[in-house]
Amino acid sequence: MDLKPTKPLSGFIELLPAQQRCFDECSSRMLKVLRECGFSMLDLPAIERAEVLTDKDNWDEIETQMFLFQYGDTKMGLRYDGTVGLSRYVAGHLNDLTFPFRASQFSKRYRGERRQRGRYREFYQMDMDIMGINTLSTNYDAEIISVIQRTLNSVSEFIGDNYVRIGSRPFWDALFDWLEMNAEQKKAVFVLIDKKDKMEPAEFVAGIADTLNNPEKEQAIHSVFENGYDGLQNKTEALDSAIAEINGFMQTLSFMGVKNAKIDLSVTRGLAYYTGLVFEFGLTNYPELGTAAGGGRYADLVGKFSKTKIIGVGAAIGFSRIFVALMEMGKIDLSQFESGTDVAVLVMGDKNVPYAMSVLNALRDEKIASVAYLDTDKKFKNQIEYADKIMAKFSMIIGDDEVAGNKVALKNMASGNQEILSVSDAIKVIRG
Amino acid sequence: MDLKPTKPLSGFIELLPAQQRCFDECSSRMLKVLRECGFSMLDLPAIERAEVLTDKDNWDEIETQMFLFQYGDTKMGLRYDGTVGLSRYVAGHLNDLTFPFRASQFSKRYRGERRQRGRYREFYQMDMDIMGINTLSTNYDAEIISVIQRTLNSVSEFIGDNYVRIGSRPFWDALFDWLEMNAEQKKAVFVLIDKKDKMEPAEFVAGIADTLNNPEKEQAIHSVFENGYDGLQNKTEALDSAIAEINGFMQTLSFMGVKNAKIDLSVTRGLAYYTGLVFEFGLTNYPELGTAAGGGRYADLVGKFSKTKIIGVGAAIGFSRIFVALMEMGKIDLSQFESGTDVAVLVMGDKNVPYAMSVLNALRDEKIASVAYLDTDKKFKNQIEYADKIMAKFSMIIGDDEVAGNKVALKNMASGNQEILSVSDAIKVIRG
Repeated sequence: MDLKPTKPLSGFIELLPAQQRCFDECSSRMLKVLRECGFSMLDLPAIERAEVLTDKDNWDEIETQMFLFQYGDTKMGLRYDGTVGLSRYVAGHLNDLTFPFRASQFSKRYRGERRQRGRYREFYQMDMDIMGINTLSTNYDAEIISVIQRTLNSVSEFIGDNYVRIGSRPFWDALFDWLEMNAEQKKAVFVLIDKKDKMEPAEFVAGIADTLNNPEKEQAIHSVFENGYDGLQNKTEALDSAIAEINGFMQTLSFMGVKNAKIDLSVTRGLAYYTGLVFEFGLTNYPELGTAAGGGRYADLVGKFSKTKIIGVGAAIGFSRIFVALMEMGKIDLSQFESGTDVAVLVMGDKNVPYAMSVLNALRDEKIASVAYLDTDKKFKNQIEYADKIMAKFSMIIGDDEVAGNKVALKNMASGNQEILSVSDAIKVIRG
Repeated sequence: MDLKPTKPLSGFIELLPAQQRCFDECSSRMLKVLRECGFSMLDLPAIERAEVLTDKDNWDEIETQMFLFQYGDTKMGLRYDGTVGLSRYVAGHLNDLTFPFRASQFSKRYRGERRQRGRYREFYQMDMDIMGINTLSTNYDAEIISVIQRTLNSVSEFIGDNYVRIGSRPFWDALFDWLEMNAEQKKAVFVLIDKKDKMEPAEFVAGIADTLNNPEKEQAIHSVFENGYDGLQNKTEALDSAIAEINGFMQTLSFMGVKNAKIDLSVTRGLAYYTGLVFEFGLTNYPELGTAAGGGRYADLVGKFSKTKIIGVGAAIGFSRIFVALMEMGKIDLSQFESGTDVAVLVMGDKNVPYAMSVLNALRDEKIASVAYLDTDKKFKNQIEYADKIMAKFSMIIGDDEVAGNKVALKNMASGNQEILSVSDAIKVIRG
């Protein structure tokens, strides 16, 4: 019989135990921060109706990027982000939730597309959203940025420092209006701006020229990437108001203690549903990772599900993108995660199992991470090798003498020291 | 435009924030126990190649029960249990892991079948497995049972007490041999035993009679459900050895401090891959929930992936089955989970936001779960209503006077008492 393949499908992540312990430690710290910041955790279905995942008129574009399947008469698919499920959930529970509602999701997302470098087909994102009915102060946008920074800071020993760049959708809207661009031009230029990072500079310049065919207007667009809003003040009320919003916002961020924040109008967060300020976090030590987290404000979250108007500000941390990538690059020191166990109980002879199990139970009652090696026919050499391999800090050797004396032989695996002790004294030594 | 549906697909679980907090608290306590018992957490892909999920000769049977889909040339599907991925993973990492290897998975599983009462199409199970190369003492079977009981006991305040019933596959094999049943009869009788709980008693009796057509043999089968192995001793060596194994095992369980364990040979764990002792946990207060956890020993875990022989003992806790069912039945008191927040900071007037944010930051630095109400145009009445609705223990009111005096007004939401305090004194009061 042919053996089946042991590798996961390409684009799917599979960690070794020490890597997983690091991954879990990081997610646990970050989720603790989010809970302390008042976010309610939501764990929504990974499968949604196809009509929830996408609009019919958008079907072809999305379909090639999603895992879709049909069961009975129902077409459904795996979520590609957290927002689509959140929108449905909030619309369905308007009377069960208190607004402004802070929600967080840490869950797997799926992309059907072929794997590209650094892109996974199954990956974790950590979302946070603050939603209000009809109104939501931009102070919450600043809070979300502060919360993301707190979250990333909680794992800074692994990922280093972070920075955030702030952009503004209203700024571009006002600039386009001042330049008297038509709807078609606005959309075309915005697509170009969105793709700018992936284009050759000359290609971008040519694209803008093709679209606008007006050197002065073209120059106005290009100037933003060099000088920000400098030279664009006192043109129109809308532009001034967009600029004032950004500046006020930067001040609020500094009140909130956000570090390493700067205005960068080239941040636009693509073609998504954002309508206000937008932002992207990066890791200071790992610019090659690109965006570590990003988000912004959306004016109408649940419009497709409900007539109630929900305004939100939301962000997602690319959790797998950060942690799996850094582990694969060897940038995270895993030494503290190599061992999951403090004590290995080694048993010499089957008749000593009952005593050994009572010792193991005592250790576990004391919340000391411990295992027993229960294949008592194995030689001592094999057993101590096992304790060594799992990097247990101590082994507790139990043979006839120990059982007779109601003791254990406690061996410090680093120093090699061994002492005969009562179980309670051994626990004291283990506790340090 | 028609609004899209806000309910999740049938058979998919969606909890409210307080329910989710309870769910998360329970999983967190149980996973902590598993880590302390030396289990390595694994987070494997939810999607596997179809050929990994099932054998070709078993395709039709399985296909109707799974979410399957094709992408490019690859047929794949969502896992329906944790064992299939574990087998692949262990076979692929034989040299990376130390054996006996203790693994645990807490993850979503999927069933494509139409929803039945109490069955979900997406659900969590919590698996634990201990695996050895070529050999694995049955002491580990007893350890797994002890670990499951520890895990369930860690949430006993929500689910009450538990019990475990132990069965034996070797016992039935030996009994069938003693009764000189042929291969066809063995299989047919085993299918009947597996379905016994879902059948009328008369239907079961008729099924056994049709298959064996021998009143004495039929009576031998029925006697097991009434008298266990009584009267079946001293028949064959194999039967005696199976009975001795069970009895020895019960003794080991008592050494390990396992409570409420009894022999029940009607426990067979269906047609799955088990080859030794099998067991099922139930909840003492909720017999209607059926099996809360179950498992057993399997002789060849990775045979389809590797020539190395891996023997294992494994179990799964029906996590969604227990917790979602009990919450739906209203059996879990959620009052302690209604609030996720200790302090709501309420801000009177936009100009006081900077001060309020510095206070919020101070609270969050102290790990006090806190939120701010930042829509400063809302009236005090709305703001205090919000603090009330989210069940904050305190609200911290910040207006012009508080900012001028570098103080906060701390209101105990239960007693209604309000004091003007410095931030550090307020933190002391909040800490109790």
